[in-house]
Formats: sequence, C-alpha cells, structure tokens
Amino acid sequence: MRADVHRFSLKDPGDVSGLQEAIEKGVIDPEKIVAVIGKTHGNGLVNDYTRGYLTLCLSQLIGARTGIPAESVREQVPFVFSGGVEGILSPHYIVFTVNSDSAPNRKENSLAIGVAFTPELSPSDIGRQRQIDLTAAAVTKAMASASIESPDDVHFVQVKGPAFALDDIVAAQRSGLTCRTDNPGKLMGFGRGASALGIGTALGQIPANTDLEQVVLHDFSLYSSVASASAGVEVRTNEVIVVGLSRAWSGPLTIAHRAMRDALDLVSVAELARELGFSPEPQIVAEQASRIRAVFVKCEAQRDGTIRGRRHTMLNDGDIDQQRHIRAAVGAIVAAVYNDTALFVSGGAEHQGPDGGGMLAIIAEN
Amino acid sequence: MRADVHRFSLKDPGDVSGLQEAIEKGVIDPEKIVAVIGKTHGNGLVNDYTRGYLTLCLSQLIGARTGIPAESVREQVPFVFSGGVEGILSPHYIVFTVNSDSAPNRKENSLAIGVAFTPELSPSDIGRQRQIDLTAAAVTKAMASASIESPDDVHFVQVKGPAFALDDIVAAQRSGLTCRTDNPGKLMGFGRGASALGIGTALGQIPANTDLEQVVLHDFSLYSSVASASAGVEVRTNEVIVVGLSRAWSGPLTIAHRAMRDALDLVSVAELARELGFSPEPQIVAEQASRIRAVFVKCEAQRDGTIRGRRHTMLNDGDIDQQRHIRAAVGAIVAAVYNDTALFVSGGAEHQGPDGGGMLAIIAEN
Amino acid sequence: MRADVHRFSLKDPGDVSGLQEAIEKGVIDPEKIVAVIGKTHGNGLVNDYTRGYLTLCLSQLIGARTGIPAESVREQVPFVFSGGVEGILSPHYIVFTVNSDSAPNRKENSLAIGVAFTPELSPSDIGRQRQIDLTAAAVTKAMASASIESPDDVHFVQVKGPAFALDDIVAAQRSGLTCRTDNPGKLMGFGRGASALGIGTALGQIPANTDLEQVVLHDFSLYSSVASASAGVEVRTNEVIVVGLSRAWSGPLTIAHRAMRDALDLVSVAELARELGFSPEPQIVAEQASRIRAVFVKCEAQRDGTIRGRRHTMLNDGDIDQQRHIRAAVGAIVAAVYNDTALFVSGGAEHQGPDGGGMLAIIAEN
Amino acid sequence: MRADVHRFSLKDPGDVSGLQEAIEKGVIDPEKIVAVIGKTHGNGLVNDYTRGYLTLCLSQLIGARTGIPAESVREQVPFVFSGGVEGILSPHYIVFTVNSDSAPNRKENSLAIGVAFTPELSPSDIGRQRQIDLTAAAVTKAMASASIESPDDVHFVQVKGPAFALDDIVAAQRSGLTCRTDNPGKLMGFGRGASALGIGTALGQIPANTDLEQVVLHDFSLYSSVASASAGVEVRTNEVIVVGLSRAWSGPLTIAHRAMRDALDLVSVAELARELGFSPEPQIVAEQASRIRAVFVKCEAQRDGTIRGRRHTMLNDGDIDQQRHIRAAVGAIVAAVYNDTALFVSGGAEHQGPDGGGMLAIIAEN
Repeated sequence: MRADVHRFSLKDPGDVSGLQEAIEKGVIDPEKIVAVIGKTHGNGLVNDYTRGYLTLCLSQLIGARTGIPAESVREQVPFVFSGGVEGILSPHYIVFTVNSDSAPNRKENSLAIGVAFTPELSPSDIGRQRQIDLTAAAVTKAMASASIESPDDVHFVQVKGPAFALDDIVAAQRSGLTCRTDNPGKLMGFGRGASALGIGTALGQIPANTDLEQVVLHDFSLYSSVASASAGVEVRTNEVIVVGLSRAWSGPLTIAHRAMRDALDLVSVAELARELGFSPEPQIVAEQASRIRAVFVKCEAQRDGTIRGRRHTMLNDGDIDQQRHIRAAVGAIVAAVYNDTALFVSGGAEHQGPDGGGMLAIIAEN
Repeated sequence: MRADVHRFSLKDPGDVSGLQEAIEKGVIDPEKIVAVIGKTHGNGLVNDYTRGYLTLCLSQLIGARTGIPAESVREQVPFVFSGGVEGILSPHYIVFTVNSDSAPNRKENSLAIGVAFTPELSPSDIGRQRQIDLTAAAVTKAMASASIESPDDVHFVQVKGPAFALDDIVAAQRSGLTCRTDNPGKLMGFGRGASALGIGTALGQIPANTDLEQVVLHDFSLYSSVASASAGVEVRTNEVIVVGLSRAWSGPLTIAHRAMRDALDLVSVAELARELGFSPEPQIVAEQASRIRAVFVKCEAQRDGTIRGRRHTMLNDGDIDQQRHIRAAVGAIVAAVYNDTALFVSGGAEHQGPDGGGMLAIIAEN
Repeated sequence: MRADVHRFSLKDPGDVSGLQEAIEKGVIDPEKIVAVIGKTHGNGLVNDYTRGYLTLCLSQLIGARTGIPAESVREQVPFVFSGGVEGILSPHYIVFTVNSDSAPNRKENSLAIGVAFTPELSPSDIGRQRQIDLTAAAVTKAMASASIESPDDVHFVQVKGPAFALDDIVAAQRSGLTCRTDNPGKLMGFGRGASALGIGTALGQIPANTDLEQVVLHDFSLYSSVASASAGVEVRTNEVIVVGLSRAWSGPLTIAHRAMRDALDLVSVAELARELGFSPEPQIVAEQASRIRAVFVKCEAQRDGTIRGRRHTMLNDGDIDQQRHIRAAVGAIVAAVYNDTALFVSGGAEHQGPDGGGMLAIIAEN
Repeated sequence: MRADVHRFSLKDPGDVSGLQEAIEKGVIDPEKIVAVIGKTHGNGLVNDYTRGYLTLCLSQLIGARTGIPAESVREQVPFVFSGGVEGILSPHYIVFTVNSDSAPNRKENSLAIGVAFTPELSPSDIGRQRQIDLTAAAVTKAMASASIESPDDVHFVQVKGPAFALDDIVAAQRSGLTCRTDNPGKLMGFGRGASALGIGTALGQIPANTDLEQVVLHDFSLYSSVASASAGVEVRTNEVIVVGLSRAWSGPLTIAHRAMRDALDLVSVAELARELGFSPEPQIVAEQASRIRAVFVKCEAQRDGTIRGRRHTMLNDGDIDQQRHIRAAVGAIVAAVYNDTALFVSGGAEHQGPDGGGMLAIIAEN
C-alpha cells in the first residue's frame, strides 16, 4: 500500500483542470483516488454552494474517467470541502490516492489513509449521541482499513458531516423530529462538535460515554487534537478520512500534528515545522516549502472575547462571521511560517483542539 | 524634549476611560498630548463612523481637562483613527505626549515627534498635486519642529486626510469642481496615494516633481517606506505626525521600521524585532513584549491577484472588502511574532512601501 | 398639553445640525424635548456604534442649550436609535416636544406622549420576567403621565433596552449570573421579545402572567401590535415612549397603527393610509406626503423560511444579517406607498405584531 | 410557433428537480427549450459561482434528456442567471420553450421569443464599441428569428455577457490588451452598459454611432427601456434573448413593459399591472397572481445619493454592495404589488431604463 497526495489550485469552484490534466498525463490513476479535501471560494457558512459545485464537478470527472456513475463516486470517495479563503489563503484541493500493489516498508512508517462513511443523518441526529457513536464507529473502521495499529499513529481525522438549511430543519420539525436548534449556522456547530467527540472516543482521547451528547458545545475541556470536522449542505452522511502512519504502507510521505493552544500559538506552528525537518527561522524557504503536500488547520474565535488578555471583536461582529475572521488570521500565521498559502484552514474548532485554539496537521515528503 | 507613548484599550469607540484614568492619576498631563493614533471597531471604509466618534470623545475629554474647547483641541492635536480590527486585532489608541522641559540626550538618539496640518482640502484636491505638495510641506514643517535633522532619522510618518461621502462629491461636482473619481471608496485610495507621495518627496525618497499627480495609483514603483496614510470622513485637512529619532530629545523610547516586500514577508517582521533587541524565535515572550509601546503596519492585497505565485481571492470578493481581508492576515502575522494584538494595522498601502507589501514601524523601550 | 413631532435628516451619525438650527430659529424649545427616535447609519446589530454616537451628540446639544449636563439629559429623555438604513431608507431622527401650557381639545383627540424608564437591567435580566414586569410598569406609568385613558388609545409604544457585547456577558457569567444565551445578537432578541411582552401585558393585549419569561422567543402567538422594541449597547435601562391619543391634549397631530400580517401585507399598509385620510392608489402624492410626521415599522424574516408559500433565503445567509434583508424589503414597500423614505424601520419583531409580520404606526397632521 | 414559459423554484443552485419532473411528466419537451433565465442564491457580484453551478446542472439535465452534450446545450441555449435574492425574493428559474408546429394567431399578437449569441468577448472588449456592435447585431438576428416585425413589439431583451475575475484581467493586460478598468466589479458595469447600448441601437432607441463606447457609464441620458443586461464569469459571449409580440406566433401568453423612473416608481408598477388586466389596488389577489409567468426588473442606486430629494446610503456602504441594497428594495415593491416573490430582479441598470430607475417587464397569461 502506498499513499500519494496531490495538491491542485482552483481558479473557480468548477475548475477541475488540475486533476484532469494529471489524469491525462498519467500522473494520477483515477481508480486509485480515495479521498479529496479542499478549500473553496464561498463563505464556509450555510449558504455556501461552492462546496457542492466542486463536489459535483470532481465526481463527474472521476466518474467519466473510471466509468463509474458520479453518484456512486460520491458514495465511495469522501469529498470534503470547506469554504472560505479569507485573507491570503489560496483555493485548492488535495487528492489522496492509494496504490495497493506497493510493498510495505516494514521497518519505517509511511503515510497511511483510510476512509469510511456513517449511515445518513437527519437534522435531528446532528449534535446528538447517534452522530457521536456513528462517527466513532466509522473512525475505527477507517483506521482498521488503513492498517494503523495504534491511535498514537493517527495524526489527522477529517470528518465532513451534513448541514441543513432552514427548510430542512422546519420540515424535520413538522415531521415530529426535535433538533438541537433551529438556527442553521448553530446546528453546523453542533454537528462539528459531535463529530469531534466521536473521533476522540474512537481514539481513546475522550472517555467513551453514552451521554456525551450533553457535552457537545458545553464542556470544551474535552477535545481531540487530531480532529477536523466540517459541515455542509451537500452531504448527508458523516464522511470520515483517517490519516496516519503505518509500517504496512510505503512511500516517501509522512504526517505530523500539533495542538494549537490559541490563535497566536506560533510556537507550536514552528515546533511542528522543525519536527518535520524544516527550518522555520522565521520562515521556511521556498525550496523546503516545496516538500509540503498538504496543511490542515482548525481554529476558532476564543469564546471569552479575548486573546492573551486583550479584547478581540470577532464575536460581536454583525458584518463578518467570526469564522471568516479567525480563518484569515490563523491561516496567515501558518502560511507565513510555511511559506505556503494553499492551506486547508477551517473555522469552528468545537472540541477540535484546546478551547480557543485548534490543531495543525501537515503532510510532507520525508 | 521628551516623548512618551501610552497605549489604551478600547471597549467601544466612545470609551475614553483609559486616558481619563491616566489623567486622573497624573500619569498623563493633558496639556502635553500632541497626537493620538488608534484602531477603532468600524469597517475602515467610507461609512465608518467609529473614527469620528472616538475623535469627538477624546477631544472633549482633553478639552475638559485643559480648558480648551474641543474644536480647538482637534485643530491642534491630530487624531488619526483607522477602522477595522479584523481577525485577532484589538481596538486601542495610542497617546503621544511631549514634555518640553526635559533635557536632551546629546549623545544618543531618543524618540522625537512633530506634528503639522495642511490647509483644508476639498474633494477635488484629493489625489491631486495640491494634496501632494501641501503634505510634503507639512512633513518638512513637522520634522523641523521635532528637530529631526536627517530624513534617515524619520521612521514613521502618519497622515490622516479627508474622505468624502457621495453627497460631498456630488456637491463638489455641482459647484463646478472635478474630482478624480466619483466613487467614495476609490477617492480614499487617491487620497492615501497622494499623501504618501507627499511624504516621499519631503524625505527625498521620491524625486520632487510638479506632475506627481499622474503617478498616483498608477506607478507603484514610487513609494515611501515610512509612510502610513489613512482617510476618513471626520477630517478636512491632512494631519501629519512625524516620528523619528533625534539627539535633541531624551527618554527611553526608540523607533525603527522595515518595508514589507509582500504580505508574507515574515523575514522582515522578524528582522525588525531583532534590530529592536527582541528575540523573535519564533515569538517574542510576554516579558519582552511588554517593552512594545506601539506597532504600525500598512498592507494591501497584491494587485495581480497572487502572492508568491499562488492565487488569492481578495480582489474578487463582493462580500468582504479587500482591506478587511489583508488587515486580518498581515495583522495576525505581526501579532504572532510580537505577541501583541493591539496593533495599528491599516489597509490601502498605495505608495506606502513596495507594491503588494507595505511597512512596519515599532516604538519600543530601549 | 400639546405634542409636536419634528423630523430631521442625518448626514452622518454625529450630524445634529437639523435640531441645532431649529433651536436657533426658535422652532424648537430645547426644554420641551421629551423623546428622540431615529434611524442611524450602522448595521443595527451588536457592533453598531452609530446609535451611541448620535445619542452623545444630541444629548450634548440639548444639554448645552438647556444648561443641563448631557448625562442628565440622557436620564430624562429617551434617545431611541435603531441602526440600519438598508435599501432606499434615509437616515433621520424624530424629535418629540411637549408644550404643557397648551389648553386641551376637550372634544377631540390629539396626539399624546408619555415617557418612563425602568431601573437598570443587567445581562442576566434580559429576556427574563424582571424585564417584562419592569417594562409593563413603565408603560403604565408613561400612559398615566400622558393622560391616555384607554389602552385602545395607545397606538405606538417604543422601548429601547440594553444590549451587551460579549465581554459584558462573560463578566456577568463570571460574577455568577446566568444569561439566557451567551450569543450577543441572540440576547438582543430576547430583550426585544421580553420588552414587547411587557408592553402587551400593560395594555391588556397579553394575559398577565408570572411566568411569561418562558414565552419569550417561544410562543409567537402572543404579541402586541403597537409594540416596537429595540436594543443597543448604548443604554442600560428600558426606555419607554408611549404615543397615543387623548382629549387632554391639543394640536393638529394624530396617530394610527396597523398590524402587518406578513412582509407582503401591502393591504394593511394602504388601509392605514386611507384611515389617515391619504389616497394611496397606488402612491400618496408628494403634497399629501408632506403631512406625514413620522413612520414606524417593525418587521422580521418569517421563521419557517417562506413568505406566502415561496422560499426566502434570509435565515440561511452568512453574509447579510436577516434583519438587514427584511428592513430593506419592508421599508421599501412602506416607502413606496407613502412616498417617503425617512422611515423608522426596525428588524427583530419578536412578539411585536403577528409572527412573520410586524406593525406599522404613523403620525400625521390631521 | 408557440412560446411557453415555466417557472421553477430553486432549493439550492444545483437543484434542477423542477425541470426534471416537468420533463418526466411530459409537461416540457427538453428539445424545445430555447432559453433559461433565473435568480440564484449568490451575491450577484464577481465571486458569485451559483450562476455557473446552475448552468452546469441544467445543461447536463437537458443534455442527458436530449442526447446532446452539455457543452453543446450551453452553446445553443442561453442560460442567464443573476445572483442575489435579497430581502423577500425567492430563488427560481424560468424555462422558455418554443413549439414550432403550432399555427400562428394571424389576428392577434402572441408571445414571441428569439435568441442569438455574439462571438466570444475578451476582457478588453468589455464596455467597448465591439461589444456594443456585436450585441446590436445579435439583437437584430434574434428579432428576425422570432418574426417580430417592429421594434415596438419588443418588450424585453435580456443579455448575459462575460465577467472576468482579476486573474483574467491581469492575464489580458500582460498579453498587451487594454481593459477599460482593472477592477473586476467595475468591468461588469461597463459590460452591462455596453450591452444595453447595443440593444438600444438595434431597436432604434439610441442613435447608432461608431463611437458609442465613450457614452458607456458616462452619458446616462441614453438608454433602452426594454434592456436587461447581466454579467457573469460563467459565460464568454453575449447571450441574447429577445422577447416580444408577434402575429406569427400563437398561445395564451403576452408581455408588456414599463420604464421605472426611480426606485419608488410605484405608479409605473401599478400601471403595468392594469395594462395586463390585473387589479393592483393595492395588491393583486392570489388568484390573479397565478396568471403571472415571469417578472423581470432592473434597478440601481441613484447616482447622486438621493431618492426624491432624500439621502440614501447605498453608495457609501462598505459592508453591503449597492446592488444588493437596491435589489432588496425594488424587488420588494414589485413583489408586494404582484403578490409574487419569484421575481428576476437584477441590479446594475446602466443605460437600462432612466438613470436611477430601471425597467419592469412581465409575461402573463392573457
């Protein structure tokens, strides 16, 4: 087994020319694509349709090149897109491929990847125990399929779960279901939180519990530092991508991660760079930066309205959503150190890293 | 002569409790206030009234404590407020005082400050030769009043000039005047550009020229790396604050600056920190950060739509203005290195630093 | 007793030239000002500081002309400003004066006005029984002071109550208080809802109840069709203005109101115009429109995501707040019929008129 | 020849279930679709990708049902989508079909429709004489294909032309082309203006002129009251749809139009309703409203910052684009009269109706 990771820039959310060219040149075998993660042009909130647009275009491209209907592609391959390229961030997508013919390293770890899907989730499942438990089960399944032996070898778990626009929530309520909130944006937060707690329980970072539901968006001391959860109206299941290290795999790629304590935690950003063999003093030079294959960041506006004792204004702002503020800020800090702006930076880090902070995971060539 | 610099946080744009308390405790003598620079809660664009609100409140406070009418205070003391505390930035204002009784250092440089005002500018003056020339004259005057001998000793020149809402522009046109544009936001850009060129000519960084007007927003190879220009509807003259070093002054404060080549120029950010005696590897520790008195940043979205070869989306965005994007990003990078979020970060760096970049100036204790 | 109503346009939120000129010309006696209501340039959400800016400027102007300190003016005169002049709306403020020397009509009703204030409210009072009960008591007191005999003669009750930014909410929580939500914008909604229920109970439109608190933002079948409630960070009490008709007053002004069933309820808009003697077929001509003294509108985005069976998108929008959408829309409908854009249109009509609708009240010359 | 017009609501920009069902039930023959016009969920500005998303989905659906590749469908069928359903507007699309077997009326006029395309336009063609002339030629061709004899029988001409994001503009400039502006949003305005002037010259409403280019966005006294021009990054030619009346066609549908003098021109809105046999006093009842097949509105923020003498704030706003403001306002006025919120309301009415106003065209059953 050998995992490869390819990053393509995105002119607009319907632009799949990068992958198309890579397929045409034989660089990527479309049959071997197991997951796609990307950052699109929209606002990353409920009314962001750029995620669905890119999902459609990529699934159609892969479908056309593999002979599989696009709908079936979408059932097999997680397409996890997060909207919002605020500030200096650059829209892009990352294609994960797995070549199962490749012999394992045996001695050393290589990048390993596994995917799984939960059953469909309704609006009333979001933020509930059912979402937590189903996510945990899917993480366990994806780990097994990736031959990752220990939870310590898991460095990044991406979940993309469903978001619902208001009419879906209203329809669910009319059919007798109870939702945790009728605010579509807030329900996205419940979904991210429950997904993160599911990841944490599967990896033993959070004590398993049949009533974790009450913890969601409530007790932020419980979190997983490898969790990255998004929500979008374009999916109906929790799609799970587990990325880690395993001796059952081969290839030159590795992954590492760090929790970020808060939005200004430049120390952790630099430490992770050094762990990966880079020289971030203060900025990785372009030649080193070319070894980076993917960067994943979760972040959030600190809930008490301050950062290191000084007031921020993100949570009072009626013009720009807090997620857009914090993505611009934390994305820029990471981009400056790694000399790379094509980062997957996602807001809404509920239970994904320390409260007010988040997490950072990087795939790079050894 | 001795300059002091005090920084106060701002709960809302009418909150002058910080200065009030400092006056009451005798920390600041209101008679000695020569300039105020700050970062307020608004959007930093034409319809940002938080700048005027704070100007009113501070001028009334100073007026009440000095016995001078608030209008007269505003004519003597530049109040330069820039809106927009995007991302992790923290609203605050910086009060400059000058004690003229203090004996000079003679041997070593200390922080020196001078202020001046141009005559009133009409909408048709904005972006024009008249604004350039009057600004240059005011800079020269402020330098002289600060006993700064060489342009090389000037490290920061802040100009706040007038912005005009649409009805002012329309009224000017009806009275027969011609404006460089009838777009209020664009006219702010012309004003910043002309002010910066005025600074540059006064300091010999840009060749003086009777037709520099045509260069404004056109030839971005001409710039001043110590210029920081803002515009706001609350002023009608170009208010000029020159900050530099002089042996005619005493006190423990110093200032230094760097041009930023682009939005990712973390190298210059760190170099300036080292020049000031800080250890930015990667982040100044809190104890060192307490020596910082003020941080000034100018930045802008690179005009070709890329940063270091990768696409950004700031100039295509119809939801969030480009200035808000870039302030969030560059502000976060500087904040992360200096461990300080109360930064004066201003967008619209036309002719203020290299094209696509900007400038960084810091006042700190020696 | 004789009430007068003066409307002034607003160039910016610090522009009090209209009232100033009226005072200087002797049109308005500043001693006789009892209330000011207005529509300012901000977003009408938590971080809208234009309301506080105008409050400061007007209270200082009135203070200077009456010899009363501005703080005392603010304690005696309600200043109720709502931000957001979306679409074709025009920023303005309305000054209510009362001349107590005037002899009553005795036979016919004239415009009557009374004001009252609740004690200070803390973040934990907002949306709670205490806010409901104190508001009801203040309405009763204001009615009595206005000699309005019957609740049927009350046509408009404006309440402006406190909003709290995040740090106030966090501080309250840290001091042991429990708030109905820690979301500043949502807490504004609780405050408007509780204020409206207080108005409704005072007027007998809603059964008095010691546990109405649980109805707030929950059972929208309970409402008052004369209630208009706003919230803003610039006030700390519920300020109450009751406007109605009474034979104890004299003068040429009258007031009438209508509930609006939904955002498209043009029928009620036109009916009210006819009730006031206008010819709205389809639009009041300019000559008739000059009889209008003030127009008050409350409106909201229908909670089920539809209007008359068709989907709207206001509640899914992450770029523009729902209140800004609905103010632009309903404001334009009323403006088109009345040929007048200087309308006080306020979003967030929780318990203020039928669910999904709102209310319309107009003061005009007989 | 017989034209039919079908309107479908849109849950999200990828939702083509309405047309799909109509095809499956035999209500629409996909071979007979000649044009689609719609209003999608995006911001209607440069970074609105909802237009391209819906274009892709509809062209694929039609392609799949007709056996024509989706790309070819897009070359034959104009898909004209405008983003922005502000306020109470409802996202939807309108499908035009033509049945050429149908015998003509001979005696009475029926709805007639013709389409045409210009060659591809580059960024440097936008707002230029070439765009004007090619549009005029396409309008003439579409009129002829629709057998509309007189320009007086043309009641609506929709053009969708190309918009370009910043990197396209920069690329064009690097290849030596000169664009009318390097501001992507402003270039959209030039494109709409030139398209409208092309329509006007083709219909004899504007004197043909080889230097009309200088009139674009300059002399707003020249306009066409049947022109509706949009721009979007998803097209590369000017797509032209001419709708009018002709005795060569049969069927129960008719069309009429009115210029709107300004945003408050409710009189024209009501007059057009009466011309079409409706009773708009004040609002068309639901039963009558069911005869409406499509409503097209163009509108814009009045350039002098006022409406009927009162100040508006749309052109000073840095948070919400002027087009979003005015669509919300004028859309609500028309919706209120016609009791219908699924209106095609498009901002940016440069040379499309009187300056500060726009136009209104309605297709209804006789």
